[in-house]
Amino acid sequence: MALEITADDMEAIALGGAFLGTGGGGDPYIGKLMARAAIGEGAVRVADLSEVPDDALCVPVCMMGAPTVMLEKLPSGEEALAALSALEAYLGRKADYLVCIEAGGLNSTIPFAVAAATGLPLVDADGMGRAFPELQMVSLTLHDIGASPMVLADDKGNSSVLNAVSNLWTERLARAQTIEMGGAALVALYPMVGAAAKRGLLKGTLGLVHEIGRTIAAERAANRHPGDALIARCGGHDLCTARVVDIDRRTTGGFARGRARLRGLDADQGREFVLSFQNEFLCLEDDAGRPMALTPDLICALDADGGLPVTTETLRYGLGLRLIGLPADPQWRSPAGLELAGPQYFGYDHAFSPIETLAKGV
Amino acid sequence: MALEITADDMEAIALGGAFLGTGGGGDPYIGKLMARAAIGEGAVRVADLSEVPDDALCVPVCMMGAPTVMLEKLPSGEEALAALSALEAYLGRKADYLVCIEAGGLNSTIPFAVAAATGLPLVDADGMGRAFPELQMVSLTLHDIGASPMVLADDKGNSSVLNAVSNLWTERLARAQTIEMGGAALVALYPMVGAAAKRGLLKGTLGLVHEIGRTIAAERAANRHPGDALIARCGGHDLCTARVVDIDRRTTGGFARGRARLRGLDADQGREFVLSFQNEFLCLEDDAGRPMALTPDLICALDADGGLPVTTETLRYGLGLRLIGLPADPQWRSPAGLELAGPQYFGYDHAFSPIETLAKGV
Repeated sequence: MALEITADDMEAIALGGAFLGTGGGGDPYIGKLMARAAIGEGAVRVADLSEVPDDALCVPVCMMGAPTVMLEKLPSGEEALAALSALEAYLGRKADYLVCIEAGGLNSTIPFAVAAATGLPLVDADGMGRAFPELQMVSLTLHDIGASPMVLADDKGNSSVLNAVSNLWTERLARAQTIEMGGAALVALYPMVGAAAKRGLLKGTLGLVHEIGRTIAAERAANRHPGDALIARCGGHDLCTARVVDIDRRTTGGFARGRARLRGLDADQGREFVLSFQNEFLCLEDDAGRPMALTPDLICALDADGGLPVTTETLRYGLGLRLIGLPADPQWRSPAGLELAGPQYFGYDHAFSPIETLAKGV
Repeated sequence: MALEITADDMEAIALGGAFLGTGGGGDPYIGKLMARAAIGEGAVRVADLSEVPDDALCVPVCMMGAPTVMLEKLPSGEEALAALSALEAYLGRKADYLVCIEAGGLNSTIPFAVAAATGLPLVDADGMGRAFPELQMVSLTLHDIGASPMVLADDKGNSSVLNAVSNLWTERLARAQTIEMGGAALVALYPMVGAAAKRGLLKGTLGLVHEIGRTIAAERAANRHPGDALIARCGGHDLCTARVVDIDRRTTGGFARGRARLRGLDADQGREFVLSFQNEFLCLEDDAGRPMALTPDLICALDADGGLPVTTETLRYGLGLRLIGLPADPQWRSPAGLELAGPQYFGYDHAFSPIETLAKGV
């Protein structure tokens, strides 16, 4: 079933993307403005994955870099089009469909801006079902679909085409380029035909993003915190409600890395938690160091008061959070998925355990 | 007048390149072996610049990175061909001539290996008349000839095509890529037609390299130190003869940077000198901090005993050096040339003064 997304729908897309983005993907507000301006009076068609012809060229476009940088260095919209055009020129072929590589603030909305500017449809799918910090962390890697050739474009007019021997090497080379480009770049990568998209992408993510966003907006309009409705809709787990009492954040290696110490509120009064992130929230521990939620499962943060999604770069002392855990797509919990994006890849000293199990233990 | 270079000539090319390379461009021994193996029983034609048709495609190929890394990470020869092929594929056109971008150890000889493997002629010219550490430091930049599109290829099979808005941006993006590729990469860059080559390249460099190399070999065979003959041939200045008594070297930012303290020998007994480098020798000062030779003029180092050229990465405690200064090509002494590669670009606190003037003052 195809969706038609208008400028007015972008609010919900931005909110839903920021929720599933587990703190990453950058400030959804900017992406929403870009997409609203680009869509104008028109609409972007979001096609069901099943309708994409097997030989159609599908191209994800997104922003790459540290969200802390994106806060200060707004994309003009031209870079994303430049990245797409350069990849098309390199391939000698025009894209037929655009793809959101992840559900995440900016990266759920920038593809809509590009879709509006080019008139191309989007595919109702993504490569993560959430956001992850590194570009090889997509379901496409689990299906041996290559990130290369990949184009990076910056705000100055520089661009490059990478051809790497693996998706991890694409990440390494692209990350170095992104840092040199000023900490953020617009990229087009993982060019794939429809048959590969059907095999490798996670279906229905944009529809889910839209629905989650509408739920958040509706609950807020009814003066209810959206947490309960989202837990019910997504099969989520209430992790904790707590206030940020300390935050250690660095932009290093092209990422926003750090950890926040949280002090419990309401029913969690007297407890403490540590929330660690690399662009995305990746690990939540209680005050005894026991894991409460671990990547690749989702740690989604809502403002404890207003209910809006909170991204890692806007974490600040005193902010109250309601943290909700969601089970990751089953592919992420496979041995290959855990090798790619499990807690040990990121250096956390915990073996993965599903959120359902961890939630019971608390 | 065209030259025919055989495997046996590569010794002289390597020696001459290492002398004009002012310490940079990497170990000429490796490049010589690569080129000898590639040339085999054949020969590489070195064409006079004047014979190159105006519409012929001329492509420089070279190694980029820190010579300290190149010492440990030898190129297989395949990377240089991969870089050339990728650039040809990107341009949709085959190269007609190859170019040495600089006179320098490896970078004077790798193009011969590629020429032998492809059957293409080389052009008797280069972009520096010496070696410099950064890729925008070529006479081509002074003639508004672009470094982009540029291809980098590594030993693992990774490659990228850069399109940057300036040659300085090409340097920045390529340097970051080179570091990520392990500190060294083979590159093809500054693709230019014959008309641009005639306008932008420095003529006759390979012939001069060959002649200098033969001079060094002949003097050594006659048990004479080649310094005097080279000074006579190149209009050089004897700077000092001295022993390395201290060396501070780091491989940072993709470069081999550092400085050596030298103690005078023979006629220079009792004097001290400081020799600073970034891949190449760039600044020589006496013990009062007065400059004796400054980039872009050439500071060429020979082993005080054997007379062989000495590269920065092989500098070591106790090594005796005979340092010879040569005037740079007049283009390098223009305001634009000094802005690109003068002492102040590298952070040395001296205004440029020609070696002829400095030599008189000592």
